[in-house]
Amino acid sequence: MADLNVTDLHGSLTDRALNSMNFLNEVANHYPDAISLAAGRPYEEYYALEDLHSYLDTFAEYLRDELGYDEAGVRQQIFQYGRTKGIIHPLVARNLAADEGIAVDPDAIVVTVGCQEAMVLVLRALRATPADVLLAISPAYVGITGAARLVDLPVLPVAGGDDGVDLDDLVAVVKRARADGLRPRACYVMPDFANPSGLSLDLETRRRLLEIAAQEDLLLLEDNPYGLFPAAGVDRVPTLKALDTERRVIYLGSFAKTALPGARVGYVVADQTVATPDGTVGLLADELSKLKSMLTVNTSAVAQAVIGGKLLQNDCSLVTATLRERDIYATNLRAITDGLAARFPDGDVAWTVPSGGFFIVVTVPFPVTDALLEKSAHEYGVLFTPMSHFYDGDAPLNALRLSCSSVTPAQIDAALNRLAALIHDQL
Amino acid sequence: MADLNVTDLHGSLTDRALNSMNFLNEVANHYPDAISLAAGRPYEEYYALEDLHSYLDTFAEYLRDELGYDEAGVRQQIFQYGRTKGIIHPLVARNLAADEGIAVDPDAIVVTVGCQEAMVLVLRALRATPADVLLAISPAYVGITGAARLVDLPVLPVAGGDDGVDLDDLVAVVKRARADGLRPRACYVMPDFANPSGLSLDLETRRRLLEIAAQEDLLLLEDNPYGLFPAAGVDRVPTLKALDTERRVIYLGSFAKTALPGARVGYVVADQTVATPDGTVGLLADELSKLKSMLTVNTSAVAQAVIGGKLLQNDCSLVTATLRERDIYATNLRAITDGLAARFPDGDVAWTVPSGGFFIVVTVPFPVTDALLEKSAHEYGVLFTPMSHFYDGDAPLNALRLSCSSVTPAQIDAALNRLAALIHDQL
Repeated sequence: MADLNVTDLHGSLTDRALNSMNFLNEVANHYPDAISLAAGRPYEEYYALEDLHSYLDTFAEYLRDELGYDEAGVRQQIFQYGRTKGIIHPLVARNLAADEGIAVDPDAIVVTVGCQEAMVLVLRALRATPADVLLAISPAYVGITGAARLVDLPVLPVAGGDDGVDLDDLVAVVKRARADGLRPRACYVMPDFANPSGLSLDLETRRRLLEIAAQEDLLLLEDNPYGLFPAAGVDRVPTLKALDTERRVIYLGSFAKTALPGARVGYVVADQTVATPDGTVGLLADELSKLKSMLTVNTSAVAQAVIGGKLLQNDCSLVTATLRERDIYATNLRAITDGLAARFPDGDVAWTVPSGGFFIVVTVPFPVTDALLEKSAHEYGVLFTPMSHFYDGDAPLNALRLSCSSVTPAQIDAALNRLAALIHDQL
Repeated sequence: MADLNVTDLHGSLTDRALNSMNFLNEVANHYPDAISLAAGRPYEEYYALEDLHSYLDTFAEYLRDELGYDEAGVRQQIFQYGRTKGIIHPLVARNLAADEGIAVDPDAIVVTVGCQEAMVLVLRALRATPADVLLAISPAYVGITGAARLVDLPVLPVAGGDDGVDLDDLVAVVKRARADGLRPRACYVMPDFANPSGLSLDLETRRRLLEIAAQEDLLLLEDNPYGLFPAAGVDRVPTLKALDTERRVIYLGSFAKTALPGARVGYVVADQTVATPDGTVGLLADELSKLKSMLTVNTSAVAQAVIGGKLLQNDCSLVTATLRERDIYATNLRAITDGLAARFPDGDVAWTVPSGGFFIVVTVPFPVTDALLEKSAHEYGVLFTPMSHFYDGDAPLNALRLSCSSVTPAQIDAALNRLAALIHDQL
């Protein structure tokens, strides 16, 4: 007999959202020789161990020369317990000003253990009663669904449609939820090159989304991991946070794709004001900080120093720092869509042509099940992600997600040959 | 009008546990010139920036030479997204064997963002229904109370008494809880030089605690941040996990005091078996891993590399690596208890004489309020922690906690003079 039964543990553990990632990782691990068009990890050719040393040194210099710490102070900043909200907040604020045109008080920033912790903090704060619900544009990044599960917060899907969000459906979902006695707290949205849809909101849609958020008294959780990676010739569109004049937007930031995932450093901008019973008014960031003190105490200062050093070495602009990667992603994205066009001229297979980011959705005339993924890995040597993993519910869909971010053009060519063989054999 | 009201946010945010740490930090920040016998941070004189570089290099060598990674593989391990349960688990297992005599399957270890995340993962897993409760030896580390608040898990105090745990009270609390329809999931205990009591469980008490856990079908959450720091002449006692033959103990490990806090690396040993509805049996560590994938994705690989390098440079023994610090803590502990004896010969003030660790509890004939702490900081220039912060409830107690870990003997002497002046003025 086992020591414990999973049915006696938290319900999230038997939920599809938490097992989805596990399943996909396991398939990838079992078939290491399969070419992965599944992994959303960033391109790694330019990572260099000596950069870590250099970033640490640069950050130490900054503490010394710009902030005036003595040697003991520098050591204390990097080695000791530190400020719960983080120690690179002034650099994050400079980065947001440089790359996004967002002016933000550094005190409204909480540096987090990747963007994932930022999501958990925000959802934990917002989930006060069983009536609370989160809205999320569907299909949605599995990380937001998983974070919501951890805090017992139901997620109501809002149709994404062909434009990235169906605003009429958003209003309808809010009204229906309220009629049902629920309290919609926020709507999660990835306006730029979304994972998994690849879709982006145009400027007009962003403005209307902000208007609706104001009308419906809804917060927007803007997640922006891919914004620096437009396709060739595509102009970037301002973030929701850059357009936000009413503090409607909680901005979730990641350095995983723009600097390196191994630091696990992200952040949240939470400049919303919060009234307390004693009459004082603080920042939502400070409430998130209290939660963080009991979740992870603070984000690794060593890891923050690495990201801080990288920011400092690039005048706090990651647009500049990621030009090589942007070109690679743009080239790969084009190679996949062109490669699909060459292999499927007939119209029984369709795909999105994203304006940037990592992801392409391919629609096929048969259900893309988990079993088909395993068959593909085993018999064809190619990995993708069944789109059903990004929807609540088990039903397989006739669609799969391809990622362009951690492969070479030669791998793309081979992978598409294998994928085409699989698809043709299914028809 | 503020954007949000804290009463619409999660209940933990208005809870004393989450505001306690904030209040104490604020007092410390407002009076930076006061001598702190409040901070539980480790002694920092021996931290050196060049060690970070050396640890990173050592870990990279280990990946190369011992695990056989090529250069691209080494970079991938340190820079990329990685294994959710961590990448230094084999080294943590060697450390547990070397320093604690604990034999553990590395796969039963989850490397976490400090011990705090380990607590949250375990409590999140165990809290399945509103009937679930956690037991904790009182007074308790505020971090466990805070973690429990984040997952809406009530904490029932178990009397600590003079021996570190009142076993009769433990049984009584369990029986009373069950009679009330509650489900006690586990009991949190810090058997070695506990924070804040300074008390340790003797070997016989540890054995009886394990027996009671078996009888009452209770898990024990063993937290052991201070075990490597016995007072001069004191022998270490085996951990509960080393004595555990039935997988009753979930072991919470920290590298903050034994390596460095700035890495934010801890771990949990969760070798309990878990049955799933499909008939397979896995490890609790793998269930915690699923939760972790949605909480922080993985622990910073850069931070793990720093801790891994430090372990490797010390043959995975932190006993060896912390000999200098152990002597300092032992000397300081003695300086505080001797200093109290010299200043309070009369018996109206009493204090514990711990056999190790960082903390001494001083009992005084008046209530130690938060206001008194502020007065002490402002008028006397000395900081301590009112013991009420380690109990559930607001009532001030006639006791305060002193910490010996981040001060010099000269600071201790001055601080005790100031404390004595405060105490005499209150009498």
